[in-house]
Amino acid sequence: MKKIAVLGAGSWGTALSIVLADNGHSVRLWSHRAEQAEAINNTKRNERYLDVELPEGIQAFSDLNEAVKGTEAVLIVVPAKAIREVTRSLQHVLPDGATIIHATKGIEPVTLKRVSEMIVEEFPEYPSDDIVVLSGPSHAEEVALRHPTTVTVAAKNPEKSKHAQNLFNSDTFRVYTSQDVLGLELGGALKNIIALGAGISDGLGYGDNAKSALITRGLAEITRLGTSLGANPISFLGLSGVGDLIVTCTSVHSRNWRAGNLLGKGHQLDDVLSEMGMVVEGVRTVKAAYQIAEEQAVEMPITSGIYQILFENKNPKDAVTQLMTRDKREEMAGLDQMLKDLYS
Amino acid sequence: MKKIAVLGAGSWGTALSIVLADNGHSVRLWSHRAEQAEAINNTKRNERYLDVELPEGIQAFSDLNEAVKGTEAVLIVVPAKAIREVTRSLQHVLPDGATIIHATKGIEPVTLKRVSEMIVEEFPEYPSDDIVVLSGPSHAEEVALRHPTTVTVAAKNPEKSKHAQNLFNSDTFRVYTSQDVLGLELGGALKNIIALGAGISDGLGYGDNAKSALITRGLAEITRLGTSLGANPISFLGLSGVGDLIVTCTSVHSRNWRAGNLLGKGHQLDDVLSEMGMVVEGVRTVKAAYQIAEEQAVEMPITSGIYQILFENKNPKDAVTQLMTRDKREEMAGLDQMLKDLYS
Repeated sequence: MKKIAVLGAGSWGTALSIVLADNGHSVRLWSHRAEQAEAINNTKRNERYLDVELPEGIQAFSDLNEAVKGTEAVLIVVPAKAIREVTRSLQHVLPDGATIIHATKGIEPVTLKRVSEMIVEEFPEYPSDDIVVLSGPSHAEEVALRHPTTVTVAAKNPEKSKHAQNLFNSDTFRVYTSQDVLGLELGGALKNIIALGAGISDGLGYGDNAKSALITRGLAEITRLGTSLGANPISFLGLSGVGDLIVTCTSVHSRNWRAGNLLGKGHQLDDVLSEMGMVVEGVRTVKAAYQIAEEQAVEMPITSGIYQILFENKNPKDAVTQLMTRDKREEMAGLDQMLKDLYS
Repeated sequence: MKKIAVLGAGSWGTALSIVLADNGHSVRLWSHRAEQAEAINNTKRNERYLDVELPEGIQAFSDLNEAVKGTEAVLIVVPAKAIREVTRSLQHVLPDGATIIHATKGIEPVTLKRVSEMIVEEFPEYPSDDIVVLSGPSHAEEVALRHPTTVTVAAKNPEKSKHAQNLFNSDTFRVYTSQDVLGLELGGALKNIIALGAGISDGLGYGDNAKSALITRGLAEITRLGTSLGANPISFLGLSGVGDLIVTCTSVHSRNWRAGNLLGKGHQLDDVLSEMGMVVEGVRTVKAAYQIAEEQAVEMPITSGIYQILFENKNPKDAVTQLMTRDKREEMAGLDQMLKDLYS
């Protein structure tokens, strides 16, 4: 039995706490809201976020110092916009030798930083090779039902990814290791672009062929972008790439898919955002990726098309026609060259 | 305007004839049944297989010699079991310089040959590098509705794949080229294994996480098998790999998914096959892949699990547990090594 802190009591943080508690660990689940922590301890449920009975071994805290005391690993699973603040609070209280793991998806607007980059900036004393990222196709609700789920944990230091694998792995939650932190983080963030695109295609009334084309060619272009930034292209073939993309693009519960769907039906971005009343991560990610692609001179025709629909009022049907009538291509020319460069 | 023969008047042959006719070509559509050819010419529909109005420019024949006369390309799109016979008939009547393209998926039972290998054996005078394969995520019905669709054509001789690209490419049917005939043919055949597995997972009542894990890890293992046979692993990231896999595994119309679904619900293979009353390609493909994997010493845990469910009465739930409790792994170790070998 190990003591582990989980910082963030949303649905994903709660689901991962269940995995750890099922494995016999003592889980210290931190919420920034005292009422929520109290309710969790009183009712043994986290009603608003993931309404199942919590196993023994999960205790909630609203004091971060208290939560991380004596732990050997700290899982950060707060929204991307809270990463910097939570990491700063962690800086002076993390026990010696404890492992930082994060399971947060997203790219910071304006700075375009990944989550592990923000952690490094806010906590420079922590060895950057020891940051672990956990990612993969995983609806929290299904994890809470103990349905079979697989994820990948990556760290540059393989000791640390193995440590995380040992903490989380169980017979319903299978954990693979990797060293490609960059690939996992980019896959998790960039997939939201493609989910928007899949929604647009469905909103236009197109079928499985069009959606599958969009997912496949979208995957090729986020792989090109990721590789140009230093990720290993085969990570995009894995659970945090293809796997997460499939779950996100084929589930009508995906926020990004729903936003895309409304855009495909002819709604304007402002109306879509106000109708949905919440952040649509993919919209910000499109902007970030578009900007990085320009800087890196990577061709991203699908991302550009979605950018034009979102920010330049382009008609979605015209964007599709433009994609379909580009110059004829070899399918994998760009990636083939990148793999040659990488391995030779 | 070019003259092109399409051999095989099923739904896919008819859909591809529509693409060619829309591009202004004169299409000679061959059926082995005289009544069908006659009905197509009389009604301008192919009622039983793809019930839409056929464009001008499609003429049906039941005499194969007549159909291929004066053509510059012949598209073979008959079921895998008829490939040898049709190729033999073609052998003495193919016009000089005409290109053979095929759009048939499957692996021959017992011999484990791919379609292009069967064509080479039955028509040894035709230059084997000039055989083109066409594959990708494409429901025939959606192609007939002119919904956006993308496919890949591959030939070892790039002149020939470009020729096929030029014939088929349009603003609703986008065609990419490749030189990896092996990768395209294997992707198209092996994906049926994963579709069976996805159906089994759904039949067991598991969710998106489990299905996505199965598709992703299944993709990794068919990529390993394909690469060990000489295919380029990045083809599996393409339209004939990931693309076709997504369409097949997420469509409830897929025969393989339906068979898997019944198996997951506890039905026995014999009952499933007799209930479905038609060939389930994936069942034969599992047997073939299992055999090739043993010969090549490639680890295929998902294929082995499905093999045991199909042919050794293994309980599907136990097979899943066995997959989830294997030794802990690095996610992409095998593929990473293969890419190093390939590119270094």
